[in-house]
Amino acid sequence: MRQITFPTTGRPADVAECVDVPDPVLTSDDQILVRVDAFPINPADLLLFRGVYPRNPANGDALGNEATGIVEAVGAAVRGIAPGDRVISLRTDNWRERLLLREHELIRLSPEIGREAAAVLKVNPATALLLLETYAALSPGDWVIQNAANSAVGRALIALAAAKGLRTVNIVRRQGLADELRALGGDHVLLDGDDLAGQVATLTGDAPIRLAVDAVGGASTGRLAGCLSAGGTLVTYGAMSGDPMRIDPARLVFGDLRLRGFWLTRYLAETPRADIVALYQRLSALARTGALAPGVSARFQVSDIRAALAHAEETMGQGKTLVTFDRP
Amino acid sequence: MRQITFPTTGRPADVAECVDVPDPVLTSDDQILVRVDAFPINPADLLLFRGVYPRNPANGDALGNEATGIVEAVGAAVRGIAPGDRVISLRTDNWRERLLLREHELIRLSPEIGREAAAVLKVNPATALLLLETYAALSPGDWVIQNAANSAVGRALIALAAAKGLRTVNIVRRQGLADELRALGGDHVLLDGDDLAGQVATLTGDAPIRLAVDAVGGASTGRLAGCLSAGGTLVTYGAMSGDPMRIDPARLVFGDLRLRGFWLTRYLAETPRADIVALYQRLSALARTGALAPGVSARFQVSDIRAALAHAEETMGQGKTLVTFDRP
Repeated sequence: MRQITFPTTGRPADVAECVDVPDPVLTSDDQILVRVDAFPINPADLLLFRGVYPRNPANGDALGNEATGIVEAVGAAVRGIAPGDRVISLRTDNWRERLLLREHELIRLSPEIGREAAAVLKVNPATALLLLETYAALSPGDWVIQNAANSAVGRALIALAAAKGLRTVNIVRRQGLADELRALGGDHVLLDGDDLAGQVATLTGDAPIRLAVDAVGGASTGRLAGCLSAGGTLVTYGAMSGDPMRIDPARLVFGDLRLRGFWLTRYLAETPRADIVALYQRLSALARTGALAPGVSARFQVSDIRAALAHAEETMGQGKTLVTFDRP
Repeated sequence: MRQITFPTTGRPADVAECVDVPDPVLTSDDQILVRVDAFPINPADLLLFRGVYPRNPANGDALGNEATGIVEAVGAAVRGIAPGDRVISLRTDNWRERLLLREHELIRLSPEIGREAAAVLKVNPATALLLLETYAALSPGDWVIQNAANSAVGRALIALAAAKGLRTVNIVRRQGLADELRALGGDHVLLDGDDLAGQVATLTGDAPIRLAVDAVGGASTGRLAGCLSAGGTLVTYGAMSGDPMRIDPARLVFGDLRLRGFWLTRYLAETPRADIVALYQRLSALARTGALAPGVSARFQVSDIRAALAHAEETMGQGKTLVTFDRP
């Protein structure tokens, strides 16, 4: 079977390889063999190639945060899963043609969900929903502000917030996105810049904002923090600028601001199985209604992995790059 | 009576004035008249002159975070306070020769506490104790790290941590303080610098550190954050560098770091009276044992307020500047 590897860290499109390795086989009663048919390329995957994470697949770990496929075979002790089921993998070594999983390492999805919606369900929509529900007690009508609003998480957050009756201020870094993000359910779309807090106060009628979501870092973090009301929380899940977060300490001291970080990998490692299953049941129900449009910008065969990675890096924040194991 | 005012914001020693105003008189049964005999100059007072706080005494508010004095007279309905009692004021307009207070606006201290210990009890020791007790559940033997360790709060934190059996790593910005801070009970004293996390790990045997206390901001915040263990909290109460806090978002995302801010004024406004009284009873008991040496570096008459302010600004972090209403 085919598998993505990289012998050294570096630019993903330079170091990635699609290699042939032996097929895995069932060796115990509780195993499930899944034939992967699609995976997306997420920013976190790209960072992994560059050696940003402590875990380093160049030293032998496999990679790939996300993949979906169809169950091919199950061990004799497996009860809830059967051949033909569509599943997503909860592991982080997924860029392989076949996965050998145990039941707690996958989520079975309703067959009505499409392959593409399934392929991008695990990371971005889950991140967006957990950002909205974990760090502030929000009620319909309340405001949330986020930067990187045109990213896959940003778009999912807009849709999920709208479905919950929350209102969003969406900060972007280039012109021309307002109509598109408002069509997803976003209330306001603003360019990041110096007088952000003043502009936001005008747009919201000076309403309190108790949750800010940051994926940019640098000075953008401080500008988001400046929009929060007293006691509000800023939660960061990314660092697209590559710069340290910069925040005026007065916001924390006088404004009682709280800063947190979200990492889906930690959530999945620390959360009881039943809660994880319930989370993905909710998300797949929303995905089936079309509320979480996958936004796939390009599709590549796995043999073209380097082209896929180059495209993903060039178009980050402009739709998902999907890689498939379609057979010719 | 004499009172400190400033008609415009600016350098404290340039804009402060000691003016004569009418003496206050008791006008209702629940009032208490206090003759102030000493107040310290805190960094927060200096910042107020410069217009850093939203509250601006140049527009008419009085100033002064802290003062102690002796009760001169009480209204007919006052029960727990009598003439001759030593008290500290909980208000923030204290740089006046006489204060008209209500009982919830002051704390009565045991007569054994000296004037100087009383004058500096409200802000710095209370801040240090609340920093230690509010943001992490620490047990004897646990480690705490702080920068600005030679400040008045830093020194109080060392002494209070030692009294609780906590161990401290104390970061300073100049040589020659190690013996002095270790004599207060500090375990390690280190110069701030690039490899802080590595040095701290060596000194503590890689022990987990779940609380970091920041009064500097800028890159120092990020270096402190780099010393915290997963799930740890960094709490900031000052910004001596004048720079925005700079922190790698990966510390929040992968390390589940939490950032908070502490402001004594908010604590005093939001906390039930009984808890505030209990806090200062504990602190004054410690002060009487000598565990909280006031560290007064210079004393000035109130008529020399400009010289006092200049000295306080020049020697910040090297002991308290105390101003007295001693009569010639």
